[in-house]
Amino acid sequence: MELKEYIIVNIDATFDGNLPFKSYKKKVKKGSVFTHFEQLEKKVYFLNEGIVQVEIKSKSEIKILDFFFKNSFFASYSSLLSNSPSDVCITAFTDCEVEIIEYQDLMAAYDSSLLANKLGRIETEKLYLRKVQREKELLTKTAEERYILLLSNHPQIIEQIPIKDISKYLGIQPESLSRIRKKIIS
Amino acid sequence: MELKEYIIVNIDATFDGNLPFKSYKKKVKKGSVFTHFEQLEKKVYFLNEGIVQVEIKSKSEIKILDFFFKNSFFASYSSLLSNSPSDVCITAFTDCEVEIIEYQDLMAAYDSSLLANKLGRIETEKLYLRKVQREKELLTKTAEERYILLLSNHPQIIEQIPIKDISKYLGIQPESLSRIRKKIIS
Repeated sequence: MELKEYIIVNIDATFDGNLPFKSYKKKVKKGSVFTHFEQLEKKVYFLNEGIVQVEIKSKSEIKILDFFFKNSFFASYSSLLSNSPSDVCITAFTDCEVEIIEYQDLMAAYDSSLLANKLGRIETEKLYLRKVQREKELLTKTAEERYILLLSNHPQIIEQIPIKDISKYLGIQPESLSRIRKKIIS
Repeated sequence: MELKEYIIVNIDATFDGNLPFKSYKKKVKKGSVFTHFEQLEKKVYFLNEGIVQVEIKSKSEIKILDFFFKNSFFASYSSLLSNSPSDVCITAFTDCEVEIIEYQDLMAAYDSSLLANKLGRIETEKLYLRKVQREKELLTKTAEERYILLLSNHPQIIEQIPIKDISKYLGIQPESLSRIRKKIIS
């Protein structure tokens, strides 16, 4: 989906197609880095096609914090909002197509554009709920329950993401995930 | 601080004082509950005066998740956004004065008001950063470091909040907090 179409479907059905900020498209190869650890984030991305992976350093280990799928926004958002170095690394997990918005252009649009502020508000609400949800899952759900949730929310994940990465995301050993999968299938 | 003044200082310096939604003031006694566990949140509160406590049930235990201080918005925000029962309980920790906005009035204002969307966007950005910050602190900082952070961000906390509640917030035993405090003072 293109950003303009996404806005019509999710933000404002009467949107005339004139974005209140510049954006440009880019094709990105699997494995390319959008944002490095410690980099200052300056861009917001809308994912037209592909899967994006977000990693975090927890003590000496690198953990998968999140995946983003097509038709969603991503960025190192706390780096962007607080103008501080990114504590996550964002990578193209598959070949991707993105639309890129410079944050300074978005901020300029925030001054006077109702649409830009609606978009910013609604997408930030989604990111907030995502954080709350993930925190709650980690606090209250077992790895098996979280795997079932992941499958029901993103059934495509099982075809496109290797078991070792799913287990890194769930925070368990690949062997444990294999056991869970066998149990679910049987 | 009144909500109108807060908006001029934090959201829009040219604000003319006409809020795009209704709001009303209320004085609330210490210990009163704003939002119960499992309640559907319907309101957004601006805290003019006082301290508000947010608790969460983690397994069988009740933990203090957060405190809000004057000149900030609070609500069971994920209940509000996802229209699901609140998993937090919000209580007046001291006598409070609040300004109350019905969420349905705020949503109506979101349709067409630039100011309402700016306010919603900026406050949601703050709540998002707060979640990220808290998650990071829990993952990477010791109780002592988190206590020092709390003191430097909210020096008034030490006079107004009993040690047993600060230790519940930090997720440690009151005896451990006493040791930390002695160590810092000496």
